[in-house]
Amino acid sequence: MHVLMTGAAGMIGRKLAARLAADGALNGHAIDKLTLIDVVTPQPPESFSGKVAASAADIADAGAARAAVAERPGVIFHLAGVVSGEAELDFEKGMRVNLDGSRALFEAVRQIGDGYRPRLVFTSSIAVFGAPFPQSIGDEFHLTPLTSYGSQKAAVELLLADYTRRGFLDGVGIRLPSVVVRPGKPNKAASGFFSNIIREPLKGESAVLPVDDDVRHHHASPRAAVGFLLHAATLDLTKLGARRALSMPGVSVTVAEQIEALRRAAGDKAVALIRREPDETIRRIVAGWPRQFEAKRAEALGFKAEQSFDDIIRAHVEDEHV
Amino acid sequence: MHVLMTGAAGMIGRKLAARLAADGALNGHAIDKLTLIDVVTPQPPESFSGKVAASAADIADAGAARAAVAERPGVIFHLAGVVSGEAELDFEKGMRVNLDGSRALFEAVRQIGDGYRPRLVFTSSIAVFGAPFPQSIGDEFHLTPLTSYGSQKAAVELLLADYTRRGFLDGVGIRLPSVVVRPGKPNKAASGFFSNIIREPLKGESAVLPVDDDVRHHHASPRAAVGFLLHAATLDLTKLGARRALSMPGVSVTVAEQIEALRRAAGDKAVALIRREPDETIRRIVAGWPRQFEAKRAEALGFKAEQSFDDIIRAHVEDEHV
Repeated sequence: MHVLMTGAAGMIGRKLAARLAADGALNGHAIDKLTLIDVVTPQPPESFSGKVAASAADIADAGAARAAVAERPGVIFHLAGVVSGEAELDFEKGMRVNLDGSRALFEAVRQIGDGYRPRLVFTSSIAVFGAPFPQSIGDEFHLTPLTSYGSQKAAVELLLADYTRRGFLDGVGIRLPSVVVRPGKPNKAASGFFSNIIREPLKGESAVLPVDDDVRHHHASPRAAVGFLLHAATLDLTKLGARRALSMPGVSVTVAEQIEALRRAAGDKAVALIRREPDETIRRIVAGWPRQFEAKRAEALGFKAEQSFDDIIRAHVEDEHV
Repeated sequence: MHVLMTGAAGMIGRKLAARLAADGALNGHAIDKLTLIDVVTPQPPESFSGKVAASAADIADAGAARAAVAERPGVIFHLAGVVSGEAELDFEKGMRVNLDGSRALFEAVRQIGDGYRPRLVFTSSIAVFGAPFPQSIGDEFHLTPLTSYGSQKAAVELLLADYTRRGFLDGVGIRLPSVVVRPGKPNKAASGFFSNIIREPLKGESAVLPVDDDVRHHHASPRAAVGFLLHAATLDLTKLGARRALSMPGVSVTVAEQIEALRRAAGDKAVALIRREPDETIRRIVAGWPRQFEAKRAEALGFKAEQSFDDIIRAHVEDEHV
């Protein structure tokens, strides 16, 4: 089996590639080739016995999209995208990468025709939803993005469903929760603090908390996110019918509950490293974000997230503190 | 005031242009210029004292879109589109006209910048919804199109909301019900019979009914549709917030109720002209269509449809049987 991944140099992409390489198979089929593309050349995963083709490519370029699918990969993980903050700062770039890039990829698949109908797993986002919403967002709540990123993801969900309905590809859109605990350095993303207040104290470093302790959000670990993508790639999708976008399960907790989980994992000393520095801008952004999902469809289809924030911290420690 | 209309040669476009010409003003401002474009040169409305520029143009062409907005019309009615059946038969044409055409228009407005922020009224459709849905579709039901046309309209709704949120234009999307009674000849659109079974018997001609009498659907007259567009062009939209697409009110009736209204209007002799010829294809298509809406937001904003199917027949007789 040949697997193509866009956005393969990103955090989730690298973890997914490592997992595919380690498993060596997907859905019982040996993976003989991994094609990894991103705007920078992705690092090939270690210890993979099959062939790896890693290259820099801009899939919003029709030629690059055609080249990426020319060998007819059976499974496509479409992770490429400009993140929320960047799509908001640079409208044209967000439209080009997030909307036109996705469409160019879908079109490249469609234009092959000839019975080629790959499974295409698209990483959407809970940013397709924006306030006001109910306490818990069900599977039939409407798309109400409040960012250009969320609008672009939602538009691609619609195209993905239509390309699927018409038989051009076999698509599924996975709305990822906030992926926490992100490894690496603190960054300036508005959501960064959700990870920072766990990751940094676990290393004995201080971290800034810019919002109130009662802020609630919907989280899953990077490991769970990789699990969602693999499950989406192998699942029988006929049960989904025409509705090909799924909100993923996750752990809905307040910041206070995150902190108590940190205390259970690493004690009062770790918790003492969190510095409260309220930031009005971040408070306002975060107030528009979803807090909780009832991901009944995804759960019924076997998608699994952690059960508690303690599990999320445990996954982080196991995966990153080797 | 300068008003631009795309799709001005269509049935609704011609009626809207005639109404604008007759009124001579919009929201208390005299209309000094009407720019009418379509793929064929639209007929200028009669008895209009202002200037009319009518031309054939393809707004999916960036240059044509730029030319259309170069004089900075204050209000844009964006009616242009490939209809449902055609967008389903010709995927590329539907994408080009319905999605790329709308985006080219929005982009042309954005690229003027410089504080230019016209009111843009976009005709969306209840085709953004597809079965299964609740008996009555509320304002927070998700977008579930089952046609390429509906998918394209839904994607444009998302772009319209984002262009508006970012201040590039002042947009509102109007989800039109089935517009009934359509004037003119019977056509092959799957929805044609809703009009045919009224219009033809009123003229003493026979009409074919391809579905069961208990089929329920959501209707508004062409006159009501024009009223929606005018109201959308003049309304204070700040109350809408970021959610810029609105399902319009209408009359939800079964075919049997339509027929009883016809009987009240024109007697048993007219009703006897309806021939039942079940058509499995049309039955199946219509089974996926919305039946009823609770258009609470639109009603609260003052959008008004007919109160009964008798009113819809009366509007047809008054407007078309002169």
